[in-house]
Amino acid sequence: QEIFKEVQELQNKQKELEENGLKFREQYNEGYRELGGIISSLDKNEKSTKALSSRLSSLIKSDKSIASMEETKELSKQLQQINLKIKDSKSKFIPETGSIFVRLFLGQVNVKHYRESEKFRLKQEYEKFKMKTNPQFLLFVVLLYLYPDRSFVTTSWQIWLLYYYVTLALRENILLVNGSKIRNWWIMHHYISIVGSLTNLLWPTGGSFSYFLPQITYFSGCQGIVQMLSSRYQQGQLYKQVAMGKASVIDVTGESDGWTPSALFLLPFLLFVQLFQLYNSFCFFAYSYRNNFDLHDWQVISSGLIFLLLGSGNLYTTITTYYYKYFK
Amino acid sequence: QEIFKEVQELQNKQKELEENGLKFREQYNEGYRELGGIISSLDKNEKSTKALSSRLSSLIKSDKSIASMEETKELSKQLQQINLKIKDSKSKFIPETGSIFVRLFLGQVNVKHYRESEKFRLKQEYEKFKMKTNPQFLLFVVLLYLYPDRSFVTTSWQIWLLYYYVTLALRENILLVNGSKIRNWWIMHHYISIVGSLTNLLWPTGGSFSYFLPQITYFSGCQGIVQMLSSRYQQGQLYKQVAMGKASVIDVTGESDGWTPSALFLLPFLLFVQLFQLYNSFCFFAYSYRNNFDLHDWQVISSGLIFLLLGSGNLYTTITTYYYKYFK
Ligand SMILES: CC(C)(COP(=O)(O)OP(=O)(O)OC[C@H]1O[C@@H](n2cnc3c(N)ncnc32)[C@H](O)[C@@H]1OP(=O)(O)O)[C@@H](O)C(=O)NCCC(=O)NCCS
Ligand SMILES: CC(C)(COP(=O)(O)OP(=O)(O)OC[C@H]1O[C@@H](n2cnc3c(N)ncnc32)[C@H](O)[C@@H]1OP(=O)(O)O)[C@@H](O)C(=O)NCCC(=O)NCCS
Repeated sequence: QEIFKEVQELQNKQKELEENGLKFREQYNEGYRELGGIISSLDKNEKSTKALSSRLSSLIKSDKSIASMEETKELSKQLQQINLKIKDSKSKFIPETGSIFVRLFLGQVNVKHYRESEKFRLKQEYEKFKMKTNPQFLLFVVLLYLYPDRSFVTTSWQIWLLYYYVTLALRENILLVNGSKIRNWWIMHHYISIVGSLTNLLWPTGGSFSYFLPQITYFSGCQGIVQMLSSRYQQGQLYKQVAMGKASVIDVTGESDGWTPSALFLLPFLLFVQLFQLYNSFCFFAYSYRNNFDLHDWQVISSGLIFLLLGSGNLYTTITTYYYKYFK
Repeated sequence: QEIFKEVQELQNKQKELEENGLKFREQYNEGYRELGGIISSLDKNEKSTKALSSRLSSLIKSDKSIASMEETKELSKQLQQINLKIKDSKSKFIPETGSIFVRLFLGQVNVKHYRESEKFRLKQEYEKFKMKTNPQFLLFVVLLYLYPDRSFVTTSWQIWLLYYYVTLALRENILLVNGSKIRNWWIMHHYISIVGSLTNLLWPTGGSFSYFLPQITYFSGCQGIVQMLSSRYQQGQLYKQVAMGKASVIDVTGESDGWTPSALFLLPFLLFVQLFQLYNSFCFFAYSYRNNFDLHDWQVISSGLIFLLLGSGNLYTTITTYYYKYFK
C-alpha cells in the first residue's frame, strides 16, 4: 500500500531532523567554545590595559616633563578608550548570574541572553506584567477600604505585595544583566518595599496598625493610580523604541498602544506620591515620638524609616532623571 | 617609546576581539535559525504522523481483515516509534517557559538550556541550595522551640518557609523543562507547602494556633533531620552520575562527598515523617470536629487538609518509586 511508503518517508524525515538536531547542538557548542575564547582574551586584554596604564603613570612620576607631552596625553586617552571598549564587551559577553537577589531564587546560573529578540522579550514581559497587575493592586486597595478590620484582607494584601515586589526585583535584575539602563535605585526601591511588606506582615493587628491603616489605604490608592500612569508611559517608551527600529515589530504582540502620557505629564503625579511618602514618614515618626519611641512598636519606626528612604530616594532619582532628560 | 607600540597592539587585539564577538553573535543567531527550522519540521512531522495514524485506523475500520495482517501491525508499531522520537525531539529542542509557576515569577521566557554542562549546573545548584538551607531550617525549629509565644519568631519562620518553597518549586520547574525525571508530585508537594505557609501566616496567634504549635515544632524538627538525610542521599546520586560519566568531572566543584545514605537506609525515616503528616492531619480534623467545624477557625481545617494531601501523596509516591526501583 501507499501508506507504507509514506510512513517510510516520515521515518526518513524524522531521521533527518534528528541529524539536524545534532548539527545544531554541535554548532551551538562550537559557539560557546568561541565565546570561551572571547572571554579569555577579554581577560588578557584587561590585564594588559591595567599593566600599561600603571607603567604609563610610573613613567610620568619618574619624569614630570613627560606628563605635558602631546604623545602622553594621546596615549592615556587611547588607554581610556580601550578600557571603555573592554567594559562594553564584558557586559555583552561575560555570562552573569546577576545580583545576589537572583542567586537567592535561581542559584548561580547565567541569565544573560545573546539575542536581541530575547532581550526585548524580557523587557516586554516585564512591562506587560506591570500592566496586568495594576488593576489587582487597586482591587486590593478597594478591599482594604471596605474591610479594614479583617486581618485576612490585610495579610493577603501584604503577601500579594511580597510576591509583586519580589518578581519585579527579580525581573529588573535580569534586565540589568541584559543591558537595560534602569537605574539601580529603582531596584533598590523594590528591595526596600520588600522589607516594608515584611514589616507589615510582622505587625500585629490592632493598636498602631489600625491607627495607620486608613492613611496607608489612601496612600496606596494614590500610588496605584500613579503606577498605572507610569506603566502606560513605559509602554509608550517601548513602542517608541520599536518605531525607531531598535526592536523588530514582529517581536511585538499586537496590543493596543492608545494614549500614553508624556514624561512631563507624569511628573506632578510622581512628585505628589513621593511627597506623600515623606509625609507618611513624618506621621510615623511623630507617632513614635509621642510614645517615647516605644520599641515594642518597632514596626512604626521601621515603617517611618522605610517611607523616608523611599520618598527621598525616589524624589532624588526622579529629579536627576528629569534634569538629565531636559537640560543635558 | 615602546609603550606606544604596545598600546597600538592592545588596540588591535581589542578590535580583533570585537570582530570575534560579532562572529559569535552571527553564529549564535545562525544556530537559532537552524533551531527554528528544526522546530517547524518537527511540527510538520507531528502532523503527518497524526494524519497517517488516523488513515491507518480508518483503513482498518473499513476492512477488518487488514487489522490482523503482519504489515499493518508493523506499520502501527513504526508509527508509534516515530511518535516517541518526535516527543523526545520536542523535549530536547522546543523552547519552553515551564509551568505557570515559572511564568508568574519570570514571565513568558524560554528556560530551556541546550548545553549539558548548563543543565547539570542547574541540578547541582539545586542540590547545593538544599544542603545549605537545611541547617537554617533546623535553626528555625530551635528558635520556635525556645520562643513559642513570640509572634515575631513564628511569622519569620513562615515567611522563610514561603521563600524556601517558592524557590524550590521554581528551580524544580526549570529542572523539569531541562530533562529532569523528577516526578510531578514532588513539585506539587511544594505548591501545597506554599499554601500551608500562607495558611499559617493568616492564622492569628493564640487559640488554636498556640494549641498546635508544639506539635508542629516537633514535627518540623523530624522533617528537618530527614530532609538533611535525603539531601545527602541526592548528593550521592549526583556523584554517581558523575562517576558514570553522565556529567564531566570538571563541572563539579570539588566539594566533600563523604558518607551518603542508601535509598533503603532512607526509607524508614521517610515513612516515619509521612506517617507523622497523616497523624497531624488526624489531630487537626479531630480538633475541628470537637469544635463543630467552626469556620472562624478555618486554618485548622485547611491545615488538616494540607497534611492529609502531603502525607498520602508523599506516601503513595515514595512507595511507587521504591517499587519501581527494586521490583521492576
Ligand atoms: C522618572 C521616570 C518617569 C523616568 O523614566 P524613563 O524616562 O524611562 O527614564 P530613563 O530614560 O532614565 O530609563 C532608563 C531605563 O530604566 C527603565 N526605568 C526607568 N524608571 C523605571 C522604574 N521606576 N522601574 C523600572 N524601570 C524603570 C526604563 O524603562 C529604561 O529601560 P531600558 O534601558 O531597558 O529601555 C521613571 O523612572 C519613573 O516613573 N519613576 C518614578 C517611580 C516612582 O517614584 N514610583 C513610586 C511612586 S508610584
Ligand atoms: C523516594 C526518594 C528517596 C527517591 O529519590 P530518587 O532515588 O532520586 O528517585 P528517582 O530515581 O525516581 O529520581 C528521579 C529524579 O527526581 C529527582 N527527585 C526525586 N525525589 C525528589 C524530591 N523529593 N525532590 C526533588 N527532586 C527529587 C531526582 O533527583 C532525579 O532527578 P534527575 O532525573 O534530574 O536526576 C525521594 O523521592 C525522596 O526523598 N522522597 C521523599 C520526600 C518526602 O517525603 N519529603 C517529605 C518529608 S521530609
